[in-house]
Amino acid sequence: MTSHKTVSVTIPRALGAYNILIGDNLLAQTGLLLSSLRGASRVIIVTDSNVAPLYLPLVELALREQGHNVLPSVIIPAGESLKSIQGWGHVLESFFARDLDRHTVILALGGGVVGDLAGFAAATALRGLPCVQIPTTLLSQVDSSVGGKNGINSQYGKNTIGTFSQPIAVWADTNTLNTLPRRELLAGYAEVVKYGLIEDFSFFEWCEQNASLLLSGDPIARNTAIAHSCKIKASIVAQDEREAGKRALLNLGHTFGHALETATGYSEALLHGEGVALGTLMAFDLAVTLGYCSGQDRDRVHKHFKAIGLPLTPPPHKASIDELIGWMHQDKKVRDGKLVFILPERIGFAKTVTIDDLAPVRTILGAYESGACP
Amino acid sequence: MTSHKTVSVTIPRALGAYNILIGDNLLAQTGLLLSSLRGASRVIIVTDSNVAPLYLPLVELALREQGHNVLPSVIIPAGESLKSIQGWGHVLESFFARDLDRHTVILALGGGVVGDLAGFAAATALRGLPCVQIPTTLLSQVDSSVGGKNGINSQYGKNTIGTFSQPIAVWADTNTLNTLPRRELLAGYAEVVKYGLIEDFSFFEWCEQNASLLLSGDPIARNTAIAHSCKIKASIVAQDEREAGKRALLNLGHTFGHALETATGYSEALLHGEGVALGTLMAFDLAVTLGYCSGQDRDRVHKHFKAIGLPLTPPPHKASIDELIGWMHQDKKVRDGKLVFILPERIGFAKTVTIDDLAPVRTILGAYESGACP
Repeated sequence: MTSHKTVSVTIPRALGAYNILIGDNLLAQTGLLLSSLRGASRVIIVTDSNVAPLYLPLVELALREQGHNVLPSVIIPAGESLKSIQGWGHVLESFFARDLDRHTVILALGGGVVGDLAGFAAATALRGLPCVQIPTTLLSQVDSSVGGKNGINSQYGKNTIGTFSQPIAVWADTNTLNTLPRRELLAGYAEVVKYGLIEDFSFFEWCEQNASLLLSGDPIARNTAIAHSCKIKASIVAQDEREAGKRALLNLGHTFGHALETATGYSEALLHGEGVALGTLMAFDLAVTLGYCSGQDRDRVHKHFKAIGLPLTPPPHKASIDELIGWMHQDKKVRDGKLVFILPERIGFAKTVTIDDLAPVRTILGAYESGACP
Repeated sequence: MTSHKTVSVTIPRALGAYNILIGDNLLAQTGLLLSSLRGASRVIIVTDSNVAPLYLPLVELALREQGHNVLPSVIIPAGESLKSIQGWGHVLESFFARDLDRHTVILALGGGVVGDLAGFAAATALRGLPCVQIPTTLLSQVDSSVGGKNGINSQYGKNTIGTFSQPIAVWADTNTLNTLPRRELLAGYAEVVKYGLIEDFSFFEWCEQNASLLLSGDPIARNTAIAHSCKIKASIVAQDEREAGKRALLNLGHTFGHALETATGYSEALLHGEGVALGTLMAFDLAVTLGYCSGQDRDRVHKHFKAIGLPLTPPPHKASIDELIGWMHQDKKVRDGKLVFILPERIGFAKTVTIDDLAPVRTILGAYESGACP
């Protein structure tokens, strides 16, 4: 067994701190981990139809063996379809039908959708239940399970409804990545390399050297990357839980990326991490155009993304440039009607920039759509 | 003008503290008060069809005169009908349709339903908008606007969905009580006298002596009672924001009361405060039966409630004792399936008690239904 890694998250306004545990074979120890935190508990597991056949029996057994009272699990259809007001209402009613009380622990077993939806349901049922995030994808292990953001989509945009509610623990079992398709692993990797780009040049160098190893399943490379990503994210979240400032840097690539995801209907055509990767390249292009960043840095990032096989152009879609710009205006960072981008000054340092003139944004979107760039 | 009173709420885990301002003619100063807190702001007022004709033009004007950008107000039908998942979804979509951003301030102008619903919408739109509570009923001025609880009802019970989210300010304009029907004023008074019963014997004595004055609209008695109630509540909330312990004492009378409210369909037949008053008498009876409290204290409370005209028996309804007991089990304080009551030891001191034997609870419910008690 690879040694476990622990990252502490201390958020001044939250009630105490919590740990992110990263390692292999954690699922089989779920019961023990919960006992160490809360003693014997009533629990409800929320998972989806992809993850349930792979891991649900193992986790339920591990919990029961340690004396926890496992209420019937809530299994949602895989995909984004239940990440809505209706879907959240359904999860809440499932909770209430199981006769939960305020001490019932919600375990979110799955990827980003399960974590966001179960996290929001836990945050709002009986004004807040304790929640443990058990992420099973690379993307959720390095990003969405950490930091307490949860949410659902509305017709006005993705994650427009939700709360900041910290979990009581995050348990990332890296063995779950063995069953993950390479395309999803690669999409999750886009959020790993993001941490190097916004905050840590030497981690970007490490990524350049170790990405292939990581993507081929090397446990040491994988655990190192996940732990380092969580460490950077935890540090940023501890400084700015509610995204009043620095936390916005974690949105590098997301303003462009979300617009492309909207254009492709949040479908299999473009995974979230792929959208972020494309958005990151566009953010570098915008930063170069506006004179914030050197072309060499932009080219170095592009070269790395190409080398590991991340998409360099958006998939076909029918949205116009105006529509893409319109969707960007639904971004939560928008202030007084103006777009706010996270732009790199160099690899390892990014900042928040309010954009008045949309012409360069349009040019970059147009170039990627036509395939002329990069 | 009566002098204003300010109560500070400091909740260790919240981002800073906020003030509760109590006084007359505050509505006309809404613009100035907001400027002092946040500078010129985008705002959305949420109110209901009863309150809008009385106060909305005044508040909108006061805000515009101070340069705030007042987006179109959201006016919900008066009553509980929109305090649901659907109603909350409607308020959220109204927000998004007004092109809000994360810095838009939500002003909740109205009674408990407006405060709970607008507070929950503010807590969940874009993961949390700043919210000011502007309560216009006695009940909301002394109870629901203070302490950060918000919520909506589900088919499984009242306020079963919601969050703890502190407002950035509470402005209680006591002039709004001049237009309040005496029955509503009396119902709100049940929550005022509650603070004396759970925590402050001398305040209960003050209530005995001054309730008539307060209910007849005397401004000094009114402001004193509201400020003292808010002070006690703020102190309890600061010690226990998330109701892990002491905050539960504020639920004196609520376990019985909510069951009676459910039996009468949360209708005009029984106002919330009337349910709390009846539940408080029942809690005293239960405490006397179980030997926690003296009969003299119970009789003294009963005498006071009778003197000021609070209801002493539930209105007619069709629920059986079993149904009432069943609804009590949906209470958020239930733990491991057992009912938890707040019971007085004496006037001015209450505690949390888990009840194993339901026989005395049944006896008391039966006595009130038959009119044999009190």
